[in-house]
Amino acid sequence: MPGLKPETRDKLKGVSTATLCTALYKRGLRNQFIQDVHPLNPNGSPMVGEAFTLRYIPAREDLNPISVFQDRNHPQRKGIEDCPPGAVFVIDSRKDARAASAGSILVTRLMKRGVAGIVTDGGFRDAPEIARLAIPAYHHRPSAPTNITLHQAIDVNVPIGCGDAPVFPGDIIVGDGEGVVVIPAHLADEIAAEGFEMTAFEDFVAEEVMKGRSILGLYPATDPQTNVDFLAWRKNNSR
Amino acid sequence: MPGLKPETRDKLKGVSTATLCTALYKRGLRNQFIQDVHPLNPNGSPMVGEAFTLRYIPAREDLNPISVFQDRNHPQRKGIEDCPPGAVFVIDSRKDARAASAGSILVTRLMKRGVAGIVTDGGFRDAPEIARLAIPAYHHRPSAPTNITLHQAIDVNVPIGCGDAPVFPGDIIVGDGEGVVVIPAHLADEIAAEGFEMTAFEDFVAEEVMKGRSILGLYPATDPQTNVDFLAWRKNNSR
Amino acid sequence: MPGLKPETRDKLKGVSTATLCTALYKRGLRNQFIQDVHPLNPNGSPMVGEAFTLRYIPAREDLNPISVFQDRNHPQRKGIEDCPPGAVFVIDSRKDARAASAGSILVTRLMKRGVAGIVTDGGFRDAPEIARLAIPAYHHRPSAPTNITLHQAIDVNVPIGCGDAPVFPGDIIVGDGEGVVVIPAHLADEIAAEGFEMTAFEDFVAEEVMKGRSILGLYPATDPQTNVDFLAWRKNNSR
Amino acid sequence: MPGLKPETRDKLKGVSTATLCTALYKRGLRNQFIQDVHPLNPNGSPMVGEAFTLRYIPAREDLNPISVFQDRNHPQRKGIEDCPPGAVFVIDSRKDARAASAGSILVTRLMKRGVAGIVTDGGFRDAPEIARLAIPAYHHRPSAPTNITLHQAIDVNVPIGCGDAPVFPGDIIVGDGEGVVVIPAHLADEIAAEGFEMTAFEDFVAEEVMKGRSILGLYPATDPQTNVDFLAWRKNNSR
Amino acid sequence: MPGLKPETRDKLKGVSTATLCTALYKRGLRNQFIQDVHPLNPNGSPMVGEAFTLRYIPAREDLNPISVFQDRNHPQRKGIEDCPPGAVFVIDSRKDARAASAGSILVTRLMKRGVAGIVTDGGFRDAPEIARLAIPAYHHRPSAPTNITLHQAIDVNVPIGCGDAPVFPGDIIVGDGEGVVVIPAHLADEIAAEGFEMTAFEDFVAEEVMKGRSILGLYPATDPQTNVDFLAWRKNNSR
Amino acid sequence: MPGLKPETRDKLKGVSTATLCTALYKRGLRNQFIQDVHPLNPNGSPMVGEAFTLRYIPAREDLNPISVFQDRNHPQRKGIEDCPPGAVFVIDSRKDARAASAGSILVTRLMKRGVAGIVTDGGFRDAPEIARLAIPAYHHRPSAPTNITLHQAIDVNVPIGCGDAPVFPGDIIVGDGEGVVVIPAHLADEIAAEGFEMTAFEDFVAEEVMKGRSILGLYPATDPQTNVDFLAWRKNNSR
Repeated sequence: MPGLKPETRDKLKGVSTATLCTALYKRGLRNQFIQDVHPLNPNGSPMVGEAFTLRYIPAREDLNPISVFQDRNHPQRKGIEDCPPGAVFVIDSRKDARAASAGSILVTRLMKRGVAGIVTDGGFRDAPEIARLAIPAYHHRPSAPTNITLHQAIDVNVPIGCGDAPVFPGDIIVGDGEGVVVIPAHLADEIAAEGFEMTAFEDFVAEEVMKGRSILGLYPATDPQTNVDFLAWRKNNSR
Repeated sequence: MPGLKPETRDKLKGVSTATLCTALYKRGLRNQFIQDVHPLNPNGSPMVGEAFTLRYIPAREDLNPISVFQDRNHPQRKGIEDCPPGAVFVIDSRKDARAASAGSILVTRLMKRGVAGIVTDGGFRDAPEIARLAIPAYHHRPSAPTNITLHQAIDVNVPIGCGDAPVFPGDIIVGDGEGVVVIPAHLADEIAAEGFEMTAFEDFVAEEVMKGRSILGLYPATDPQTNVDFLAWRKNNSR
Repeated sequence: MPGLKPETRDKLKGVSTATLCTALYKRGLRNQFIQDVHPLNPNGSPMVGEAFTLRYIPAREDLNPISVFQDRNHPQRKGIEDCPPGAVFVIDSRKDARAASAGSILVTRLMKRGVAGIVTDGGFRDAPEIARLAIPAYHHRPSAPTNITLHQAIDVNVPIGCGDAPVFPGDIIVGDGEGVVVIPAHLADEIAAEGFEMTAFEDFVAEEVMKGRSILGLYPATDPQTNVDFLAWRKNNSR
Repeated sequence: MPGLKPETRDKLKGVSTATLCTALYKRGLRNQFIQDVHPLNPNGSPMVGEAFTLRYIPAREDLNPISVFQDRNHPQRKGIEDCPPGAVFVIDSRKDARAASAGSILVTRLMKRGVAGIVTDGGFRDAPEIARLAIPAYHHRPSAPTNITLHQAIDVNVPIGCGDAPVFPGDIIVGDGEGVVVIPAHLADEIAAEGFEMTAFEDFVAEEVMKGRSILGLYPATDPQTNVDFLAWRKNNSR
Repeated sequence: MPGLKPETRDKLKGVSTATLCTALYKRGLRNQFIQDVHPLNPNGSPMVGEAFTLRYIPAREDLNPISVFQDRNHPQRKGIEDCPPGAVFVIDSRKDARAASAGSILVTRLMKRGVAGIVTDGGFRDAPEIARLAIPAYHHRPSAPTNITLHQAIDVNVPIGCGDAPVFPGDIIVGDGEGVVVIPAHLADEIAAEGFEMTAFEDFVAEEVMKGRSILGLYPATDPQTNVDFLAWRKNNSR
Repeated sequence: MPGLKPETRDKLKGVSTATLCTALYKRGLRNQFIQDVHPLNPNGSPMVGEAFTLRYIPAREDLNPISVFQDRNHPQRKGIEDCPPGAVFVIDSRKDARAASAGSILVTRLMKRGVAGIVTDGGFRDAPEIARLAIPAYHHRPSAPTNITLHQAIDVNVPIGCGDAPVFPGDIIVGDGEGVVVIPAHLADEIAAEGFEMTAFEDFVAEEVMKGRSILGLYPATDPQTNVDFLAWRKNNSR
């Protein structure tokens, strides 16, 4: 993957997942929102980065004694050390939150390594601690049991499903207070540009509606006056 | 609908959904609590108003291009403009939160129009923004994809199901930090009156229990002394 | 039940449910975490106590008029008065949160009686009030309908299931900001001791990782230097 | 329990669970149908008998080695030997079919002992064999894992929930090709009598409708001619 | 609705729902298969007809005494008498099979009136009897409780959702041993024509594969020889 | 993989999945039964073979036009041609049966190629046709939509989850009328041998129970006479 351009990363930090979903919808992509994952710290900063993935399968008991983590090449531990700075670590936990996908020590390690965030469609253990870390983290619900209770890490950086969304390594993962969206890598620049413009318009609309204006003709801008007003607003607000 | 009496509205603002459910239970109504919806702002003010409804069906792709909102008569947009001030906008999203029921701009518009609140058994997009608005809003979980991804607005102000509860236009919708209850319109006055009285008694009981009194004989008041004490408490507390 | 030793109780207050699950996992116990229950007050104090149980079955309408609570021997009310101080009141609600398991008045009574906490795999009514009480409480989600809408209290202090975990009277129940774990009574002392030691090591590891150290060799401590460092850390930190 | 009268048993063998549900509905009982259980042999004979119950809780691994069945007092094995002839063995498996509730050998033993049927809201193992036995059996789906994988038998003949229906020992359990209904013991005679009469009327209606008659006025019999015709039909058909 | 052309109806009787789903997929329609409904008689004849719909909402107890059916204008009963011959009666039961959508008497009446079939995303009561009738019927699972236990009929012939598929009155409903698909009315002729052609090709392919031919190049027909062989096959088989 | 020994294959054809689950349970393996999959032809022959796997992820619309199957290297099509004779084709469909995992033409091709069976934790299209083929097939439920509606084939013969069970390439897959079990490759011989012996004993027990003998002391064989009788039975029955 050639990587995410810094200006695209910056733009995406200012665009909501809702707006990104609409831009994707216009291109026929309807399933890019990771379903039913939630930020551990709803007031955290936005998350943007290339996907680096971990795949779990159901754990077989004989292959998952507690001693398994003594192997330095265990995919979960190796993935934590190999995930590039600036990337988002995305875990396919088969939407099973009955055991943890990871805990606070591993998430802290990712944070220290400069990773941009972590997402699982299962649950994290030590969730209260993770919520206090300065790294965006998303899961379905807290889950104390160690991951090997139900999950066996099997592959690193292959295409996965996460929360019913397809995630390919290198896809751009964006998270905000609402949830997480997956942008196909080749669309990142244009989606970021379009989302940036849409955000300006939506901010204008939000102000107008707050002033008491009807949504009819304004949103979408079917009344020509709307675009006139929007251009004036952009000028006034330097956007 | 003749509308909700101001004194009934006021009384209902001071009665919890739990107490209202008990008053309904006494009348044989067991399914009036909208299941599994949650306030976006748990510390918001209580919500009371007549139901004004919107019904979604599953979206058919050819009928739901992004341009559909350019139609000023689109039921979702029209519903937003037609919902009376003081009413509660209730959406039947078939308990499907995989795509949004509405977003912050429409909810802001409802707020500015004086609508008393909004409820969906699906999810809202822009949930963090909606949580900061001064209008009560209830949903299942945040959901960024635009509503037309999965929902097609088809009808305004018809009887619907919401969270497995029946909702008829004009029913009285009450929400608090716990959730939302549906009071059949013809019962609103008597339920409000009974709930008001029950609340006084429960407040008395809560104080007594906090002082260390046993619940036996007190709640319910099978010990005659309980009613004696309650009457004294009402006098002392002007209730 | 001989009861929980004070020193075991104290140790368990300082060990997370995640760590306890790992200690149980080492002994072949994989299903002791109560699935999908959440603290009403995520910032509350930890909960430790012996299990005292209540079992619900589905309510039959003719056996559950509102007058049923006038019976002082109704199992729910009796259970509330009989639960020993220091114990945790655990309710088998068959994972059904469509009606309440209990409300704020009963939970207040438990608190005043010195009970250490309350857990249901259903929901509480008056959840916002319960969240403000100084007693740990865990449920699946708020639920306003009175318990007899769907639940009939049938047995006190028998073995139950709660959130897919087995709970025997006298088992040690521990809750933190993440959830609730069930420790078989006969293992409480050794699990507490081991958990106490594990917590010291994990605190050391967390500090090291926060300083930038890799998890490889550190967690688990396959590098001999790790144990050397840990012993020094314990001495320095008097642990 | 005084037991089921032979004439009541006989009548109930000729009444469908659908008709019985309607008779119960008229008395305010809405939750007596055991949800989502199916006959292993859809063409088997009807099942009628008093409930004899077994209660499972989630299995704790240390209490459930394979050797547990060597205990002759193990509740599952004891229940199988103690269930009275003519009764129906009803199992509360917490709607969890991931492991079996029982297998063909135990069901065969029940059959040989004269038991009238067996119901679980989980699953049976050896389901193809059970389907060939001359005893009615109902479950959710086939499930090969031995019961102790997830279930621990804990109590015999206590009130239970089965498929979200309340089941008290001695209640009358009736099964047909559609499913299973629970009749409270004290209502058995009157429900049987009413169901017997309703069945005659419905058979008459079915014949009329098959001849081409409209349901309006016929079902229910709001047209006086309907009752005239029904009386003639009864005479002609000796019913 | 102008109605379904007889030749289109005939063609559709010979095309599988799987093939129709593929033809719809090519036009961007991905959600036209009614999810999780099953034929009561898997060996019955295919079902084709225009949709005539019934919409249920959750039942409110005070509006649904057993006497409600005495009203000849009750939407369920009226719908049964008004559904045109040749149409398919499609019921929106909100995917809730805990109570019945209809029973054998009403389904018999539909059959006698010449209706082409019946579909619900809930369940039928008297399912064993319905399975023996000469009318195709599809549901989720058998359900003995009378519909008013949980369902209130509210509307006839409005757009509905059924098994997560959108159904508009007049859409063409096709059922086979696999399930039920919804064809938008305006596409019926072209989908029937294309499905007819696809069926011929798939029958050819099935024969070839049964003879041992690889699917590569054959299905889809990327090898030019495939089309040569297919044309010869059509000639030989007069298709 | 060295492959499955012919004598092991033969033995496994005579052992039920229930018995195999018990043998696995004795070795601490509790999750080897593929949950909630069912044979399309319940009366078909038993299925035994080494696992050959296919992994799906959620489909991204732009990568899954109908033309995708024109690629001869498409993993689904390639997997069908590469699966070895005697193996079982096991598909990870993420337990999502809303679109098909495969259809009758591909299953026919597998059959003609000598493959021993096919399993998905999703659904098959053309299910009625597949049910008539002479190859064992297991799925959750019929599903007409083409697989690319929701599934994208991504990998062949990697470890997967199927119905919450771990499946490694080369594991031994056994299916009967009840369902499907996964035997780790290295245990196949000993599990087959033990299952063969257990089957003899269970057949003896079944006969005894059918004659009226109690299960106490017989099953398990805690009464010494049981083993005496069993040895005699083996001799008499040449087993």
